[in-house]
Amino acid sequence: MKLAVIGVGLIGGSFALALKQARAASHVVGVGRNIANLKLALERGIIDSTASDPAAAAQKADLVLVATPVAQFPAVFSSLAKSSVLITDGGSTKRDVIAAARKALGKRIAQFVPAHPIAGAEKSGAGAARAELFRDKRVVLTPLRENARESIAKVEAAWRACGARVSRMDPEEHDAVLATVSHLPHVLAYALVHGVARRNNADQLFSFAGGGFRDFTRIASSHPEMWRDICIANRDRLLQDLKSYANDLGSIRKLIQKGDAAGLEKLFAAARDARNKWIQSS
Amino acid sequence: MKLAVIGVGLIGGSFALALKQARAASHVVGVGRNIANLKLALERGIIDSTASDPAAAAQKADLVLVATPVAQFPAVFSSLAKSSVLITDGGSTKRDVIAAARKALGKRIAQFVPAHPIAGAEKSGAGAARAELFRDKRVVLTPLRENARESIAKVEAAWRACGARVSRMDPEEHDAVLATVSHLPHVLAYALVHGVARRNNADQLFSFAGGGFRDFTRIASSHPEMWRDICIANRDRLLQDLKSYANDLGSIRKLIQKGDAAGLEKLFAAARDARNKWIQSS
Repeated sequence: MKLAVIGVGLIGGSFALALKQARAASHVVGVGRNIANLKLALERGIIDSTASDPAAAAQKADLVLVATPVAQFPAVFSSLAKSSVLITDGGSTKRDVIAAARKALGKRIAQFVPAHPIAGAEKSGAGAARAELFRDKRVVLTPLRENARESIAKVEAAWRACGARVSRMDPEEHDAVLATVSHLPHVLAYALVHGVARRNNADQLFSFAGGGFRDFTRIASSHPEMWRDICIANRDRLLQDLKSYANDLGSIRKLIQKGDAAGLEKLFAAARDARNKWIQSS
Repeated sequence: MKLAVIGVGLIGGSFALALKQARAASHVVGVGRNIANLKLALERGIIDSTASDPAAAAQKADLVLVATPVAQFPAVFSSLAKSSVLITDGGSTKRDVIAAARKALGKRIAQFVPAHPIAGAEKSGAGAARAELFRDKRVVLTPLRENARESIAKVEAAWRACGARVSRMDPEEHDAVLATVSHLPHVLAYALVHGVARRNNADQLFSFAGGGFRDFTRIASSHPEMWRDICIANRDRLLQDLKSYANDLGSIRKLIQKGDAAGLEKLFAAARDARNKWIQSS
């Protein structure tokens, strides 16, 4: 199989490396805005050639992965509008990606099988790509009613070749679930680091931050442009979750205010037990 | 040196193991509420004997570490009130610990040199203790005006023997700094996990949570009783920080609501840069 990767970053680069390692891709052509990043991708053997735009890359490919920040998807889909190639993506939101694909691809929408690999990292770019990124990680497909079975099967096979655990979901449900377990925590972590960094004694504060703070804020080192796009694309769901979270935090604040030791311990224990149960089962 | 450890958990047990490994402690006597935990501590060679209460343990010791949850500190200090032994502690808050010590020890307050090792973990109990826990971690001493120089030096030497980087701070400042970089993130993580766990589709949500969620919520697996006590002891500072955080989060919510892409990207980039600068320097 020949693969085209639009956006050779952490996700796109890792997809290419994984398919090469699995001998599922024989040639990878890369497209990107950043020349230095593309050069690095060539040097690392992630891609074998480059093309000037998605349309040119698609001409040489059996499968295209769109893995740019989601705000660029409309332009990428437009570029692919006259191609008959099979397309999948790595976007963290699905409703907006599907809407953009429908608009740009029109009657060719059946060629697009949406996917979301749940395997980020706080590092980005071709330098961070690695063949193992998707191993044992979840990839959610949100197939369209227009997709042919064999198209879905091909895309599913490619993600499975990366070592991923593939499942299917409705796009609406996908965006609601991911808002809660991924988009919300990113915003919470960004808010904490930004708040600390703006304090007069920020240097002192950081110098006494320990391992808990480091892990809690790891996702605040994520790609700002990518997360900007996710927050805007999934705005309605994210705002709902921010509201729920503010309520949850308000309840704890009241327990602290009242000095309700038993209430706090009960809440903390319930949270710990739920998390430990999840960790043990995953 | 003979050491007494009151509360042979993660902190107390690790202190004992580290001092034994450094050959700075020849005998450790342990006191605790949980018989099974004390038995495990004996089996693991963390402690060499047990005593029924702090006073009995102090009779055989040159240094006592108080490492129970902070709500138990008043009773522990009362038990130590007639002893002339040097005392330090592992409490995460300092103003309340010092107040409790002053109340119970009275004129003997000079014997107590307060300390806070910034080296937690989400695991607790003697089973989680390890000699390396404090290696290259910060320990903050908040000495009292009554402390003799040699008492502070002895306590500092013990923490240094554990491999820790020891510094000194005012108790007020300590509690303010730790509220921001430690107590607040713990509350934020507990709130997220508790909120997710109460949803009707909690199982589904957890099953699609990835590495970001796992690291963000690691501290929500912390000891509920310990964190209950910290939240209540440092309530005034923590409530201030919860208020600041709610404001910070409100600003981001507004940017999302307005669809202010540039504003979001700027904020996320500032947070990422601040965090990366900290990680690189630490």
